Amino acid sequence: MKLLIVFITIVCIERCYALRGKHHYRSINTPIPANFSVKWYSQRVDHFSYVNNDRYNQRYIISTDHWGEGCPIFLYAGNEGDIFMFANNTGFMWQNAQRFQAMILFAEHRYYGQSIPYGKLDRNLTHLGYLTTEQALADFAEFIQYIKETIPGAHNSPVVVFGGSYGGMLAAWFRIKYPHLTIGALAASAPILQFPGLYNCNDYFNIVTNDFKQYSDKCSQSIRNSWPAVRRLLASSDGRKWLSDTFVLCKPLADTQDQDFITWLSSTWENLAMIDYPNNASFLQPLPAFPIKETCKRLTNPDQNDKQLIQDIYNAASVYYNYTGSAKCNDISVEAQDLGTDGWSFQACTEMVLPVCSNGETDMFEKNEWNITKYSDNCYKNYGVKSDGEKALVLFGGKHITTATNIIFSNGLRDPWSAGGVLQTVSPSLIAIQIPNACHHEDLRPVGPNDPPALRDARNQEITIIMKWINDYYLKLSFNPFNEINY
Amino acid sequence: MKLLIVFITIVCIERCYALRGKHHYRSINTPIPANFSVKWYSQRVDHFSYVNNDRYNQRYIISTDHWGEGCPIFLYAGNEGDIFMFANNTGFMWQNAQRFQAMILFAEHRYYGQSIPYGKLDRNLTHLGYLTTEQALADFAEFIQYIKETIPGAHNSPVVVFGGSYGGMLAAWFRIKYPHLTIGALAASAPILQFPGLYNCNDYFNIVTNDFKQYSDKCSQSIRNSWPAVRRLLASSDGRKWLSDTFVLCKPLADTQDQDFITWLSSTWENLAMIDYPNNASFLQPLPAFPIKETCKRLTNPDQNDKQLIQDIYNAASVYYNYTGSAKCNDISVEAQDLGTDGWSFQACTEMVLPVCSNGETDMFEKNEWNITKYSDNCYKNYGVKSDGEKALVLFGGKHITTATNIIFSNGLRDPWSAGGVLQTVSPSLIAIQIPNACHHEDLRPVGPNDPPALRDARNQEITIIMKWINDYYLKLSFNPFNEINY
Repeated sequence: MKLLIVFITIVCIERCYALRGKHHYRSINTPIPANFSVKWYSQRVDHFSYVNNDRYNQRYIISTDHWGEGCPIFLYAGNEGDIFMFANNTGFMWQNAQRFQAMILFAEHRYYGQSIPYGKLDRNLTHLGYLTTEQALADFAEFIQYIKETIPGAHNSPVVVFGGSYGGMLAAWFRIKYPHLTIGALAASAPILQFPGLYNCNDYFNIVTNDFKQYSDKCSQSIRNSWPAVRRLLASSDGRKWLSDTFVLCKPLADTQDQDFITWLSSTWENLAMIDYPNNASFLQPLPAFPIKETCKRLTNPDQNDKQLIQDIYNAASVYYNYTGSAKCNDISVEAQDLGTDGWSFQACTEMVLPVCSNGETDMFEKNEWNITKYSDNCYKNYGVKSDGEKALVLFGGKHITTATNIIFSNGLRDPWSAGGVLQTVSPSLIAIQIPNACHHEDLRPVGPNDPPALRDARNQEITIIMKWINDYYLKLSFNPFNEINY
Repeated sequence: MKLLIVFITIVCIERCYALRGKHHYRSINTPIPANFSVKWYSQRVDHFSYVNNDRYNQRYIISTDHWGEGCPIFLYAGNEGDIFMFANNTGFMWQNAQRFQAMILFAEHRYYGQSIPYGKLDRNLTHLGYLTTEQALADFAEFIQYIKETIPGAHNSPVVVFGGSYGGMLAAWFRIKYPHLTIGALAASAPILQFPGLYNCNDYFNIVTNDFKQYSDKCSQSIRNSWPAVRRLLASSDGRKWLSDTFVLCKPLADTQDQDFITWLSSTWENLAMIDYPNNASFLQPLPAFPIKETCKRLTNPDQNDKQLIQDIYNAASVYYNYTGSAKCNDISVEAQDLGTDGWSFQACTEMVLPVCSNGETDMFEKNEWNITKYSDNCYKNYGVKSDGEKALVLFGGKHITTATNIIFSNGLRDPWSAGGVLQTVSPSLIAIQIPNACHHEDLRPVGPNDPPALRDARNQEITIIMKWINDYYLKLSFNPFNEINY
C-alpha cells in the first residue's frame, strides 16, 4: 500500500501542476473551505429521444484550489435539493481535496435548486415529465464529458463520484451504468435495496423508534401516545384551532388536513433520526449536537392529558423546527430547508417507490400498512401518472449488482435509511462499511470534535479504498503508450 | 469443465420438465427448424420520461420446444430489420436450443419490421424521435422482465443475449448496461469501435476491396475503373438513359441522382463483402455459395470501353440483385430485402455515427473523405436533427469496456465491419474470437456443408463459453437458500 501511495505521488507530481488564471471568489456565508466558482452547463432536457431538443441550465460548483493537470476529479452527484445544501454538508470531499490534489465538482440535480427546466417547477407533465433518475444520470455523464473536454489537462483525470442518500443511489448507479466515466463511487447511506419486495418495510420506522428509545423509553412512549391524542384533538374544530395555535402554524388547519398534519409531525421524528449527529449541524435544519437528546429532554411524561402531552410534543418538535428561534411560524408543507419536496414527491410517485410501513407495536408510530394500489392511486390523482415499483429494479438491478465494481456502500446504523442499504460486502470491490452509532451519510460530513472513533475509522477506510482506485487507474494509464486507458 | 457440464445437466434435469399446453404451429416457408409462435408485447414508447405515455406493440418470436422450467433463455436482440430476417439467419440459436434446453426468443427492434410505433414510419420527429438505441435496450429489459414474470418457471432462468451486426452491438451494450438481466452476450460482428476517433475509417473499404481482390485482381480493378466510366455516362442525358435501361431501373435516373446511383452501386460490393458466405444463403438477398466468386466471373476485363465495362458491372451486380431471376426491375433506394433502411438512416444520422471513408488508392472506390460537418448538415436537412458522434461513446463507453464481463466479440475477418470490431481479448471474460475467412456474423448462421474448420471451431468455442456462463449461474443459484441470485 505504501508503495502504491509513493507511486501515485510520483505520477501525480509528474502530471499535476498548479493551474493559472483561475477566477474564483472566496466563499461567503458558507462552510465551504475553499475558493470556488458557480457555473452553468447547458444540458439536454431529454437525453433519450429526439422529440424534444430543448435545453436547460444545470448549475454546478467547481473548485480547483488543489487540482493540477491529470489529477483526480471528485464529483458530487447532486440529489433532491439545492446543490449548496450538499456542498455545505459534504466536508469529506473538501477536506480531502488537498490530499488527493482533486478538483471538486458539485453538480445540481435537474428540477432542484436553480437547475429547473422550463423555469418554475409545475405539475404539467410536458414540463415535469423529464424528472427521472435516468435523465439525471445522463446529465452527469454529459457533464463529465464536458469538463474533460473543456478544462485543459482534465481529459485523463480519473473521476470519483460521491453522493449521500438519493445522491448515494445516483453515485452507485452511475458507476453501474457509466463505468467508463468514473473509476468508483462512494455511495453514502444509499438505500438502493429499499424497493418493493427487497426489504422489510417495517425496518425504517423501527430504526427511528430505537433512536429515540436509546435516549429514553419515556421519550419514545410520549411520541407513541401522542398520535391518539392528536387524533382526538383533530376531531373537533376547537381542537384543530388549539393545535394550530399551539404549533404556531402559518395557516390554521383545515378539516381536510388531518393526515397532512400527522405526516408532518411524523416526519419531524424521522428527520431527527436521520440527522442525530454528534456535532451541531445545519443539514435539513440548523441543530445542536445530538438533537434527539435535546428533543427527548422535553418528552419525559408520556401519561399526561392530551393537551399537556401535545404541548410537550410541540416543544420537542421545536428543537427541529426552531432551534435558532428565528422561525415566525410553522408551515406543514415544509419538512426541511432547501429540499425539493415537490420534485421528490413526483420521483417517489413514479420510479423511486421506497415503501415504508409501521405497525404501531415495534415502532412508536400509527399503524400504517404499505399499500401500493392506494399509493399509486394517490400519485395518479396528484400527477396523472401511476407508480411503478418495478421500474427501478429493471433499470438498476435491485440487489443483483454482483457484476459491478468499485463501489463503497457506507451506512450509519442509526440512520433509518440503512434499512434499505447494502450492509454486507458483496465482493472485494463492492464494499459495505457499517458505521455503528452514526446517522445519515455522516461520513460525508466535515470532521467534527465529537466524531466517534467508528466514524473516523470509516472515513480512513474510504480514503484508503479511493486511493487504491486512483492508483490502479494511474498504473493502467502508465502502461498505455497512447496515454489513455485502452479498452 | 466436464465436471461442470455434468453439474449443469443434473441441475437442469432437476429443474426442467417439458412444458405442457403449448400452442405452437410448425413453421411454413421458413428455415426455422422448430415450432414457434409469433406474439406481441405492449411496450412503452418512451422509457425515460413521463411526457409521453403511449405504447406500441413489439413483435417477438418464441419457441419452447426444448425448454423446461428454470432452463436457459436465448434472446436475440433484434436489429434494423424484420425480425424474421434475423430468425431465419441465426441458425446458431435454433440448432443449439436442444443442447441447452433453451427457450428461443427473437425480439423485434422498435421501428422495424412490424413493430412500428404510430403505424407507418414517417419522418415527423414526434413519431420517429423515439428511435434510439437506449430506448431499444430498455425495450429488451422490459421484455425480459415480462417473460420472466408471465411464463411459469422462467423467473430464475438465465438469459443469454445474442445479436449480429448492430444487433451484436445491442447484445454487448445490453450486457454492459443491464448485467442483472442477462448472464452474457454473444456479440457477433458488432462494430462497437467504429465510432469517430476510435478506428481508421479507411479500413472498412480496404477489407471490401481485399475480398474482391482475393478472387482476382481484374475483378477489383474492374470495379475501380467503373467509377469514372459511370461518371462519364451520368454526365449526359443519353448516358443516364443508357444506364437506366442497362441496369433495368424501375425509374429512370434523374439528373439529381448521380450520387444516389453511385452509392447504390457501391453498396452492392459492400454488401457482397459482408455476405460472401461459403454456403448458399438468403440474407440481404438470395445468393449462391461464395457470391463474390460468381460476381468476379463476370468482371474479367477492366480495360474495356465505358459501355462494355459497365455492362459487365451490371451483369456482376445482378448476382446480388437478381440471382433468382425474379426481380422485374431495380430500385436504387433498396439495397437489401427486409432491412429497414429508413429507420437505420435516422439512427445513423443521430447516434450511430459510424464513419467510413475511401481513398481510391488502397481501395477500389472513389475517393471519399469522412466529413462530419457535411454528414451532419445532410442529416439536418433530412430529419431536422444534427449528428452527435460522441453520444454513443458517452452512453456506452467506446473502447472503455474493461469493467464489463461475459461478452464474446466474434468477427469474421473478411467482413468489412470487423474494422470496427473488438478483435483482441480484453479480459478473461471479454473474449474476442477472430474467424479467418469468415464474413458478417457467419458464426450465427446455420451449419452448412462448406463451413470452414475455423468457423466450426469458433462456434464450438462459443458453445463452451456460454455453457460456462450458465454453469456459473446455476452454481450460484444452488448456493442460495432463497433460490435467487443474491446481490
